[in-house]
Amino acid sequence: MDADDTKLLSKLIHKERIAHLATMRGTGRDAAPMVSMTLFVPESDFSAFYIHISRLAWHTQDLLKDPRCALSIAQTDDGRPDPFTFPRVTIRGEAVEIPNEDEMVPDLKVAWVSRFPRQENTFELADFAFWRIAPRDARFVAGYGSIHNLSAAELERASH
Amino acid sequence: MDADDTKLLSKLIHKERIAHLATMRGTGRDAAPMVSMTLFVPESDFSAFYIHISRLAWHTQDLLKDPRCALSIAQTDDGRPDPFTFPRVTIRGEAVEIPNEDEMVPDLKVAWVSRFPRQENTFELADFAFWRIAPRDARFVAGYGSIHNLSAAELERASH
Repeated sequence: MDADDTKLLSKLIHKERIAHLATMRGTGRDAAPMVSMTLFVPESDFSAFYIHISRLAWHTQDLLKDPRCALSIAQTDDGRPDPFTFPRVTIRGEAVEIPNEDEMVPDLKVAWVSRFPRQENTFELADFAFWRIAPRDARFVAGYGSIHNLSAAELERASH
Repeated sequence: MDADDTKLLSKLIHKERIAHLATMRGTGRDAAPMVSMTLFVPESDFSAFYIHISRLAWHTQDLLKDPRCALSIAQTDDGRPDPFTFPRVTIRGEAVEIPNEDEMVPDLKVAWVSRFPRQENTFELADFAFWRIAPRDARFVAGYGSIHNLSAAELERASH
């Protein structure tokens, strides 16, 4: 991946506020893909992506049964003639719930509220918790025909 | 669902240009959720959602193995303080490839190129085809705490 695409990927992950989370919904042969919008904050070195979600939400119920997930971050539609040229990245990995008493939670809360000030009230609700998505790999579409399959290590290198 | 939320859903589906498509990637016990950005056009009565995709794309390869999918349409980030309030809908269903010689393809092409003029060149590529996603149900989040689970028939009624 060249320097321009690396910069584009870093900017995309830092700038966008929403993502789409794919989970497996249902069990056994009835398991089928589900996708829902979520907010997220990236670890500064892209070694993890955090979401703050409610146990009442479908995606949380799904992750409790099967931690495998995929998170897509796409550029906000800026009205350009061809939206197919938007850079977007899908991070595939597993999600693990972070207990509210974990020592990393206070810093995560600061990062979350700094990015989403209106979400502060969710920290007073017992059903919300942070989940950490650890990337296994990523697929970055830098634009039409420019696709990069990245290992977790390559994704981290793009953060520098 | 009240008239305001019905109107909000209809506007969301007609206005947004991009969606996120969840598919099953891999087979058997290795099948895991994948999600990627896509363009789409809705049938006017919301009885179907069309995508025009390449056989070279992962999501197409996934759908050829397992047609079950989910399509999420979320409001474009308009920079409001709380992005968690964006209306968004997830349509779950099955996708079926439409042969290029099908009689509905010319009209679909007109609709597609009208919405995405710069995508006209994809109709000269042999690896692209339309796929029809038939909704089984939909989950519409009209805003914080306002969630509607809709049958396919209820989704269609929101198109009027």
